[in-house]
Amino acid sequence: MQRYFVPEAQMDERSVTLEGDDARHAAAVMRAKPGDRFVACNGSGRDVVARIASVDKHKVQADIIEELAVSAEMSWKVDVAQSLPKGDKLETVIQKGTEAGAAAFLPFLSRRTVVQYDERKEAKRIERWRKIAKEAAEQSHRSVVPRIEAVSSWKVLLQKFAEYDLVLLCYEEEGRSGIGLKDALIAFRREREPGNPASPSVLVVVGPEGGFAPEEAEAALAAGAKPVGLGRRILRTETAALYALACLAYESGELGGNNDA
Amino acid sequence: MQRYFVPEAQMDERSVTLEGDDARHAAAVMRAKPGDRFVACNGSGRDVVARIASVDKHKVQADIIEELAVSAEMSWKVDVAQSLPKGDKLETVIQKGTEAGAAAFLPFLSRRTVVQYDERKEAKRIERWRKIAKEAAEQSHRSVVPRIEAVSSWKVLLQKFAEYDLVLLCYEEEGRSGIGLKDALIAFRREREPGNPASPSVLVVVGPEGGFAPEEAEAALAAGAKPVGLGRRILRTETAALYALACLAYESGELGGNNDA
Repeated sequence: MQRYFVPEAQMDERSVTLEGDDARHAAAVMRAKPGDRFVACNGSGRDVVARIASVDKHKVQADIIEELAVSAEMSWKVDVAQSLPKGDKLETVIQKGTEAGAAAFLPFLSRRTVVQYDERKEAKRIERWRKIAKEAAEQSHRSVVPRIEAVSSWKVLLQKFAEYDLVLLCYEEEGRSGIGLKDALIAFRREREPGNPASPSVLVVVGPEGGFAPEEAEAALAAGAKPVGLGRRILRTETAALYALACLAYESGELGGNNDA
Repeated sequence: MQRYFVPEAQMDERSVTLEGDDARHAAAVMRAKPGDRFVACNGSGRDVVARIASVDKHKVQADIIEELAVSAEMSWKVDVAQSLPKGDKLETVIQKGTEAGAAAFLPFLSRRTVVQYDERKEAKRIERWRKIAKEAAEQSHRSVVPRIEAVSSWKVLLQKFAEYDLVLLCYEEEGRSGIGLKDALIAFRREREPGNPASPSVLVVVGPEGGFAPEEAEAALAAGAKPVGLGRRILRTETAALYALACLAYESGELGGNNDA
């Protein structure tokens, strides 16, 4: 069934309205008729099946006939902070990370960030990143479009660490000898108040192509991050977030095996 | 230190012999002398430091002085069978899958494979895929270059299932209601002879953009595959293998948490 993300204002208890591009898409591309069904998502976890009552190219009116109970969202809320990588690699990170269930992307600049960051182009780039997130969310049948934040400095990013239950610093040096991601997650579960029903919020922090500078890693640890390795091989910067998201989904019970999910 | 890939027969408990091109390289290019050291990799995960005892241009004898305990290879041997995706997406699968530790890639054709497969171009494409695997292996500091097999039919692929301890069919339909990857891996561990020291061999089978046809999935199950879901979201065909490899590394203990690794 075709899926549309619909602003909260266009969706109430009993009905959904498609407007703008979505109405045009339904009318012209899907050739929707009264009686046809689609899935509408309010973008924050409510998915419904709606049956079309009336169609024109500016507005599609539909009645909600089913609330979809199963969410496609991760059990844990996982945000990805990614040091701005070269070329269009952030697009890959956003596309794949959205498929894998990330709740938000926080691009940042760090000492070894290679790219020339051009503030004047920022609005356009963010718009493009948001479009990629929306398309990937639709394709992967998510009910939430991940939030894309503006590019921040490392310093500003550090200040956000306190908002999370767990901050994981993907630190290459830890891969071979230090603590692995699984050890860190087991320790996190152990320390967390047993029976705490809230879904934990996690920030995965991925460095640039050249890795974090040692003083950056130190500042991150001082701000409460746990340095973790993602296994024995050196992952490219654009691979790390997806890899970590898969592991977090696995640990949280989304792929079976325990009761968190 | 110089690294050499050495056939199993030239490496025993205590010593390593370089022959052929490697011996010539050590003698003529490196101007190796007794007492010099090099790293020898047996290509299946054993890396050692060896000290040269004698050199001539046909044979270099060396004593193993250190086992490099931490290999960059996965604890489990994981091959990826990927239905040929559109465009150059198989290149992405091979590059990312190599970073994530896959031992081999087995491209195959299935009913809903979208691409036009051109046998005449095959030699060139395989050559290119092998180059991508070698470069990704070097960049991710692996000691093994994954094997790239020729494109096979679904029927031929099914016959290979028997060579593996576990065949995982990434089957979209299982994602929301069926058995998740973690359940399948826990069951696999439970059924496996306890104390079996051999590293398990696993085949991850990923379908084309359109998914497997029901009769293909049935044939896979009849051939011993376990259908598994990779979470609640629909992953693109080029994302699934990397996602599964991360989960397998996580479960095998490579990222900490248990004793398999």
